[in-house]
Amino acid sequence: MPHNALDALIEALRRLPGVGVKSASRMAYHLLQHDPAGARQLAQALTHAVDSVRHCALCHTFTEHDICTTCQDAARDRSKLCVVETPADQSAVERTLSYKGLYFVLMGKLSPLDGVGVHDIGINRLLQRVENGEVQEVILATNFTANGEMTAHVIGEQLRARGLRVTRLARGVPLGSELEYVDLGTIAHALHDRR
Amino acid sequence: MPHNALDALIEALRRLPGVGVKSASRMAYHLLQHDPAGARQLAQALTHAVDSVRHCALCHTFTEHDICTTCQDAARDRSKLCVVETPADQSAVERTLSYKGLYFVLMGKLSPLDGVGVHDIGINRLLQRVENGEVQEVILATNFTANGEMTAHVIGEQLRARGLRVTRLARGVPLGSELEYVDLGTIAHALHDRR
Repeated sequence: MPHNALDALIEALRRLPGVGVKSASRMAYHLLQHDPAGARQLAQALTHAVDSVRHCALCHTFTEHDICTTCQDAARDRSKLCVVETPADQSAVERTLSYKGLYFVLMGKLSPLDGVGVHDIGINRLLQRVENGEVQEVILATNFTANGEMTAHVIGEQLRARGLRVTRLARGVPLGSELEYVDLGTIAHALHDRR
Repeated sequence: MPHNALDALIEALRRLPGVGVKSASRMAYHLLQHDPAGARQLAQALTHAVDSVRHCALCHTFTEHDICTTCQDAARDRSKLCVVETPADQSAVERTLSYKGLYFVLMGKLSPLDGVGVHDIGINRLLQRVENGEVQEVILATNFTANGEMTAHVIGEQLRARGLRVTRLARGVPLGSELEYVDLGTIAHALHDRR
């Protein structure tokens, strides 16, 4: 255990993802020297968030209510369910303003090398979610990484076995990119899925 | 003001230096999903540090006591005072195990472009600190940046005017480096200060 308040703070800041000992020291010095009000605000926000934030009973994203505001929104198309890995991914889809259905947030992805299997992410919860007959189409929007693709594959198999329509975000050439600099796998997919 | 606990936490995390909105979101999601205990520990450490950490009356570094443990250490050479910009710099000098004198931590540096002048950093406090006649030599160990050099120059002038011996860390070629890749200013200094 660190023997003084400053070392204890540096130690605690290191638990943040992507923060090593040098960043943690810099943060601690900055807060103590220039922003004690910010430190108190952060302490309160942390305690309040840990106390009040839980998971939406329907889509499993973070919320302070039983059902999140998105799932409560009566204007949304309840026949479509977009499956994403994280709330950040959900927010990216939302910002496109081109999707009006509901979401399901896995809060993770399959990652066998890290010991994350089917039971560690919300797949069973997703299977229960689609059982009410309301959902007609599930759009798999997990990331286009090896683990994200695997997650989409596993989920897709199980949903198709239940007779649901399962789609995946289109793969293709990103807007604004030059073919010369796009990786060959992406171009091959774009050729195959040409329209 | 953010309307929910998660947004408030992301907002508070953004006050940390070097943390933008994406990092702050990632930190918030990580703490809520995987490390609520870490979030509580961080909240406590923040409150405790802001409540209990203040400045050493002698060297101005962070401490929970009136006088920090380094300044209290009777085994240290009280005739030498090493002036550094930050506690992190002090810690770097300490880790060399080749300095047994005392320190003075400016908690900043002159930076005219940011509006940081002579009265905003601990220069007056340093001048008071050396007045007791105990200190014989002041070693300027501010950084070798434009602002650090200027800070050393200004402090050095004032201390020399009070008849103190003032030295500066040697400039030269860093250990393990190849001349081909060392900047020319450093080589020029190393030539000039050859021994």
